Amino acid sequence: MTLRDIQKQVDEWASQFKLPYWQPLEILARLVEETGELARELNHRFGAKKKKETEPKGDLGDEITDVMFTLCCLANREGIDLQAEWDKMMGKKLYGRDNQRFERK
Amino acid sequence: MTLRDIQKQVDEWASQFKLPYWQPLEILARLVEETGELARELNHRFGAKKKKETEPKGDLGDEITDVMFTLCCLANREGIDLQAEWDKMMGKKLYGRDNQRFERK
Amino acid sequence: MTLRDIQKQVDEWASQFKLPYWQPLEILARLVEETGELARELNHRFGAKKKKETEPKGDLGDEITDVMFTLCCLANREGIDLQAEWDKMMGKKLYGRDNQRFERK
Amino acid sequence: MTLRDIQKQVDEWASQFKLPYWQPLEILARLVEETGELARELNHRFGAKKKKETEPKGDLGDEITDVMFTLCCLANREGIDLQAEWDKMMGKKLYGRDNQRFERK
Repeated sequence: MTLRDIQKQVDEWASQFKLPYWQPLEILARLVEETGELARELNHRFGAKKKKETEPKGDLGDEITDVMFTLCCLANREGIDLQAEWDKMMGKKLYGRDNQRFERK
Repeated sequence: MTLRDIQKQVDEWASQFKLPYWQPLEILARLVEETGELARELNHRFGAKKKKETEPKGDLGDEITDVMFTLCCLANREGIDLQAEWDKMMGKKLYGRDNQRFERK
Repeated sequence: MTLRDIQKQVDEWASQFKLPYWQPLEILARLVEETGELARELNHRFGAKKKKETEPKGDLGDEITDVMFTLCCLANREGIDLQAEWDKMMGKKLYGRDNQRFERK
Repeated sequence: MTLRDIQKQVDEWASQFKLPYWQPLEILARLVEETGELARELNHRFGAKKKKETEPKGDLGDEITDVMFTLCCLANREGIDLQAEWDKMMGKKLYGRDNQRFERK
């Protein structure tokens, strides 16, 4: 499964609804909400936040893929080919200025 | 009540606990969580997100002050005088470059 | 200066423009942008992120008040009285369930 | 390329450095920073924010993959198999409660 397959899977799911994708700023709001849930989970595991008894135990993998799903909705709505963008980014990381940014082994 | 009073009120609340303030990145994680709750409320009111029946109705004012409270914790922990910072910022907005940024009446 | 004065100060600034306040989801996008700048500054000071040489040194107080300013814009647009909301929140913290949440001295 | 390949690609990049991955809350701070850049770009394209002349034009695809890259770093650090998590999530969306959430065609 490539990122194209993943985007297609999201699109097949979305396409069954009358309104497949929200407006971009609505998708952003959802992204922020999902990022907030990830932050809560991280603070619970690695930080100081004590969960309330009534809060269900979370799953880090769930929270990460919820954020990824929202990113795919945004990319699909805007016709962005994530695999092409990913390859472009990794090329820059491997050969561009970011390559000198951190101390090597 | 000035911003100094507000910070002092937060500090009085925090000081009753063994660990009054978390580490900065822990406070940030909380800030992100609270911002996520604000985003959810905004999407429910002004965007496309349909709330699940089981989700309690939120209150916009609550969510905004929860974010402000977290900011005050961070400022208190780092010894930042918010009123002084605020005055500096408003001075820049009124007399600095931001003043030319938007179209006037 | 109370929170009401602060909101009024923001409103006086905003009212000089043709479009004093953006739409709620636009204000949220700005809030997320400002929160991101605060996160970068915190990671630089307390975390692992090495700043690029070209990045200007930030100021934590600036970043916090930028977030607060954006919250005030949202509150003003929606007619929310932050001082009243703040008092309500502090009342809950002092006398409500949150009061039992952390270990006391 | 599956999500496993993508995670592996990130890991190969990270493994060349002395400190391949930051601490979880440091990665979160970076995630928030990247999400902020995405929000700025979205507000510029779909919202009200007028860019300053000095701000470079952004690319939506860049900003989305920067967020995805950060999520991969977090997943790698915590030993999370994103493809397995993704499949689990899509299964819930296709057959679980979320399937009834929005109006169908």
